Amino acid sequence: MLNLKHIAVSSFNENIAYIHRDCTAYKVDDVQTLTKVEIHGGVRPIYAFLQVVDDAKIVKPDELGLNSEAFNQINLPEGANISLSLAPAAPSLASIKRKVAGNILSAGEYASIVNDIVSHRYSNMDIASFLVASGSFMTAPEVLALTEALIGEDVMRWDNEGIVVDFHCFGGVPGNKTDIIITAIIAAYGLPMPKTAARSLTSCAGVADTFAVLANVDIDEDKLKALVKENRAAIVDYNALPIAEGSKIVSTVERHLGLLQLQHLAASILAIKLAAGVTHLVLDIPVGPSSRIKSTNEAMRLRKLVEYVGDMLSLEIDAVITDGSEPIGNGIGAVLEARDIMKVLRNKEDAPQDLLEKSLFLAGRVLEFDPKLRGGQGYAVAKEILTSGRALEALNKIIYSQGKAPQPQLGHLTRDIVATQSGVVESIDNARINRIGVLAGASQYPGAGLDLMKKVGDQVEQGETLYRIHSVNSTDFAFANSVVDGNTGYEINSKGTY
Amino acid sequence: MLNLKHIAVSSFNENIAYIHRDCTAYKVDDVQTLTKVEIHGGVRPIYAFLQVVDDAKIVKPDELGLNSEAFNQINLPEGANISLSLAPAAPSLASIKRKVAGNILSAGEYASIVNDIVSHRYSNMDIASFLVASGSFMTAPEVLALTEALIGEDVMRWDNEGIVVDFHCFGGVPGNKTDIIITAIIAAYGLPMPKTAARSLTSCAGVADTFAVLANVDIDEDKLKALVKENRAAIVDYNALPIAEGSKIVSTVERHLGLLQLQHLAASILAIKLAAGVTHLVLDIPVGPSSRIKSTNEAMRLRKLVEYVGDMLSLEIDAVITDGSEPIGNGIGAVLEARDIMKVLRNKEDAPQDLLEKSLFLAGRVLEFDPKLRGGQGYAVAKEILTSGRALEALNKIIYSQGKAPQPQLGHLTRDIVATQSGVVESIDNARINRIGVLAGASQYPGAGLDLMKKVGDQVEQGETLYRIHSVNSTDFAFANSVVDGNTGYEINSKGTY
Repeated sequence: MLNLKHIAVSSFNENIAYIHRDCTAYKVDDVQTLTKVEIHGGVRPIYAFLQVVDDAKIVKPDELGLNSEAFNQINLPEGANISLSLAPAAPSLASIKRKVAGNILSAGEYASIVNDIVSHRYSNMDIASFLVASGSFMTAPEVLALTEALIGEDVMRWDNEGIVVDFHCFGGVPGNKTDIIITAIIAAYGLPMPKTAARSLTSCAGVADTFAVLANVDIDEDKLKALVKENRAAIVDYNALPIAEGSKIVSTVERHLGLLQLQHLAASILAIKLAAGVTHLVLDIPVGPSSRIKSTNEAMRLRKLVEYVGDMLSLEIDAVITDGSEPIGNGIGAVLEARDIMKVLRNKEDAPQDLLEKSLFLAGRVLEFDPKLRGGQGYAVAKEILTSGRALEALNKIIYSQGKAPQPQLGHLTRDIVATQSGVVESIDNARINRIGVLAGASQYPGAGLDLMKKVGDQVEQGETLYRIHSVNSTDFAFANSVVDGNTGYEINSKGTY
Repeated sequence: MLNLKHIAVSSFNENIAYIHRDCTAYKVDDVQTLTKVEIHGGVRPIYAFLQVVDDAKIVKPDELGLNSEAFNQINLPEGANISLSLAPAAPSLASIKRKVAGNILSAGEYASIVNDIVSHRYSNMDIASFLVASGSFMTAPEVLALTEALIGEDVMRWDNEGIVVDFHCFGGVPGNKTDIIITAIIAAYGLPMPKTAARSLTSCAGVADTFAVLANVDIDEDKLKALVKENRAAIVDYNALPIAEGSKIVSTVERHLGLLQLQHLAASILAIKLAAGVTHLVLDIPVGPSSRIKSTNEAMRLRKLVEYVGDMLSLEIDAVITDGSEPIGNGIGAVLEARDIMKVLRNKEDAPQDLLEKSLFLAGRVLEFDPKLRGGQGYAVAKEILTSGRALEALNKIIYSQGKAPQPQLGHLTRDIVATQSGVVESIDNARINRIGVLAGASQYPGAGLDLMKKVGDQVEQGETLYRIHSVNSTDFAFANSVVDGNTGYEINSKGTY
């Protein structure tokens, strides 16, 4: 028996148990690297990975330390008697090996995998190997099975609502934060829309990051229900809700790996929406040569896939293939994106027209879920709501109800990237622009990012600014600068006409 | 600037930096999960992954803690001034994504990947995704490129020797520790054989584990050279040598994942041998339906692959396809395997004949690398060396020179698995037997394992013992017991004749 000690270290998803090298109860020489253990003493055993300590000030030989994640799970006071045993490998790891070998896994296997992930029986390494192994191919029934598994047991119910709508985008296009404008329009119209947003995985900013510039997004389930009742819509970070735990854990690993497979993304989005109790969903599938989805064929396959999964799980999906050939809006990074959004909602003259038009188009599609709306009227209704100022009013209500955020500052380290020749902007490379923005610090700091002054088709003179880099600290600034010189992401056609 | 503190925690390969949540120099709220950082202040920056600390007794707000791995690398005293910056993703991670997408990687890409792994720029998750992504397929030139990359910069030189021999087995067959007997025979004969052995990855015991029962295997480079000069051979854990660092790091992740791809294994074995300065290598490729290599075709492909890589890197390879249809020897697990080996070397009547014959056959193949030996004489010479007692004498010399080990005890928790019917043993499932042995604790404790009383073709009476499980602790014992009842791994043909 060992005495429990809390080691107040957060290790992000992974449970760590700290054992002294001269442990009185277990011979650490025999413990091989990265050993998974079961820790007994609480209501049920918890799983953790061993690390060996050579300092009795951290843990004594008769103690076992647990990091904050594990300590919260075991739910025992410090000093409690606990014991440990080597944990056998999670049985579902055998399915990962089957997937590596190229097999199709059953629904039962996906359920076991996600269950073991949620029970912290997988290390982050195991999750990484699951993601990579299943990333190479998954059949549609496999994506369905993974979606069902990721939904988990707790599904939000909206008993007093008829339909519950939401909107989500498959991403890959910098800027592109129509979500917040759409939510404002839907709220003003009055359909219930508990918009679950995510933090950035591989992009400069997720919708949750951008809205966090304006309002508190860490909203719990009860508060979300109250907000939707009051305002018809809310925009929340889904991590704060007790749903789709598997998606949250898997996302952490995806973010770390910078690896996001479309089929996993589809399963994860649909699982979160279903767990949030959404009944009607518009999905934006942007296509462009430098976007996440590169061809119309690929977009069409993805559309069929989500329609299939949606049909099987009774989620009404309207999947819309859109133009993702260049960034949407001018700002990239949370603060700059929030600025663009507010310009659109305020009907400013310098509001980015592409962001405005795309938001109206997609908001119209969401509105048309309403059986009371005449077919083909969605866009016009959305436009009226926006231009009348009702969308702005609705968003301001949402912001104040969720809690207005202290506006973060735009990064003060700036550099203007200028055209080296006169001509017309022929193309903007989404992936490149995203990478420069991420290096500039955008995925870490809301105030970092890129501000695009020119878009495709714009005339530029030599020496004119194409975009401005904003960084919050000098290291990020140096990273972005070192990369941007090789390739700005812009192609200028010097022949001059587009 | 922060003050360096050593956090005496070993985390196995990964560098961890501990930052206080109220850090005075960096805003931890902005630091996303699992962030890779560069730590500056030493001769060159080192890489680490951040964990957040809520206890000033572990690190204070003006300190940055480094775990033992990272602290050793930065090579600065505690209290030194250090700073940190977010590290951009290792450039070679883009190659992993290319591999996930099904591309063939260039030699330069493999070199960059291994270089980044050795520089601790990959997390264990990144390594896992590399292993899984490349595990699905690698071309022969890719395996060659990976092998070259894994060799690293430091290659042992044996300037006074003509040829330097070694032997290695691809594994997958429980028991099968011919290596130690072969080494004893080669030492007695007089060819230089610096046998580099590995710890168990997915098996009950690696050769290094088994020989560690008899002698110290943690031998450094100078000592190894002196030992080979003195005794002509040595058996050492390659982890103690300053070679093939990439292989060591990758192995830790493979062990954790329990995932071992043949092409990685081939690259790793050949890289270690080349880095150890071996010029002539016998490779054992055991084939059996329940072994790692399941068909002769698969074995043949593997043979061609290692021959190709060997030819390109000037390593003379004799790859031998052998019978891996059932365990070799009776003991499985380090102590029991060492017992079998000593029985063979002592010419005991109850020595396992399969282990004896296979060792002689393979030792003969190694001996025939000697240009002075007449073709076809290897087996006879090996047999003479063994039966005369000279092999035993040579091994005893090796044991005493390396340092005799305190013999670990055989696990005292035992259970006899008995035949449920009379008949003939028709087959023994290697993978099943290995799993039962691993669950019994064999990969963790040298004294745990299985002792086989019956082999394929043996007559058994109902109630007679097939094998005995040995465990060192009750948890492992319970694991093994819970699994063995479902399937003992033995098939008995009750018709009675084989």
